[in-house]
Amino acid sequence: MKAIADISIIPLGVGLSLSSYVAACEQVFSEHGLEPRLHANGTNIEGDWDRVMAALKACHEKLHEMGVPRIATNLRLGTRIDREASMEAKLRSVEEKLEP
Amino acid sequence: MKAIADISIIPLGVGLSLSSYVAACEQVFSEHGLEPRLHANGTNIEGDWDRVMAALKACHEKLHEMGVPRIATNLRLGTRIDREASMEAKLRSVEEKLEP
Amino acid sequence: MKAIADISIIPLGVGLSLSSYVAACEQVFSEHGLEPRLHANGTNIEGDWDRVMAALKACHEKLHEMGVPRIATNLRLGTRIDREASMEAKLRSVEEKLEP
Amino acid sequence: MKAIADISIIPLGVGLSLSSYVAACEQVFSEHGLEPRLHANGTNIEGDWDRVMAALKACHEKLHEMGVPRIATNLRLGTRIDREASMEAKLRSVEEKLEP
Repeated sequence: MKAIADISIIPLGVGLSLSSYVAACEQVFSEHGLEPRLHANGTNIEGDWDRVMAALKACHEKLHEMGVPRIATNLRLGTRIDREASMEAKLRSVEEKLEP
Repeated sequence: MKAIADISIIPLGVGLSLSSYVAACEQVFSEHGLEPRLHANGTNIEGDWDRVMAALKACHEKLHEMGVPRIATNLRLGTRIDREASMEAKLRSVEEKLEP
Repeated sequence: MKAIADISIIPLGVGLSLSSYVAACEQVFSEHGLEPRLHANGTNIEGDWDRVMAALKACHEKLHEMGVPRIATNLRLGTRIDREASMEAKLRSVEEKLEP
Repeated sequence: MKAIADISIIPLGVGLSLSSYVAACEQVFSEHGLEPRLHANGTNIEGDWDRVMAALKACHEKLHEMGVPRIATNLRLGTRIDREASMEAKLRSVEEKLEP
């Protein structure tokens, strides 16, 4: 089962500068064979459900190892069985409908 | 690693009545040894990360088996290592601070 | 237009104990004539869209006044025009379908 | 008060093809003077809180006018008072920390 995920990870108890933690997770995702696409409010990844979820768990573990005491993640997670989905196709589908 | 999760599952392509799908997932969560707490906009569960995630995956699989072609889930997911967390303690902590 | 909302407010830069901020927002919601229903991972409110959104803005303003430098909110927001919706009816609809 | 928002709008009761509705909201956001940045799982906008929220409401209204009976939106919403925030700065801050 393929999953498309949008992950927003909020480390708590480490002040206001969160970018180094976001960057650490990007690296974790890449190490799991995923191609993270960073955006201003999260990171999009797609792949087999188990791979995506293993990467997310590894990201929480990594951040706790870095000293983050508490993490609040918001995850948007899509699966479908009617046809193969991809982030690229989702984007293209909307962009085709935008008026020039 | 313990996780506290708030799961909002939105089945797509099956019309407007979603409650039977939400109920099916409640049952899946219970079968996984979790104690789901339904609220008006989702379901709260807590437990070992792997158990919580296995239950979530089983819920997506169950709904697809029931004929749901596409699912959009929103997940709030908390972990912490400074102390043991529980949903009961989170609730109590806020309620103690509410003015009578 | 009526809205049903599930609000999870995460204050950043104030350490790990967030319950006093959640409690402050509960009070703000009540002062706006809403009946907040606290759960382990957020607060559910329902009412006219403008009232709900005014309450949410007042909550952010209140927390910033209390010294919170940064806030990350996750909001689930539902509207429908096919029939009158209520949180009570949503809950009942699922509960009726749960096996005893 | 400036807000940075990530909006994921899910129209219910209109089948599985949602891109025309997402595109309609992009247009609404632009008409409100915002510069929507579409990504695979939502749209990022930033601006004055009231402008952002007026645009979100107009998007719900537009979709209901188009015949969507029910809408489930997931919104990530950030405000901060310690310094001026921008989506561009958020992105740059993470990208600077990514290993080459």
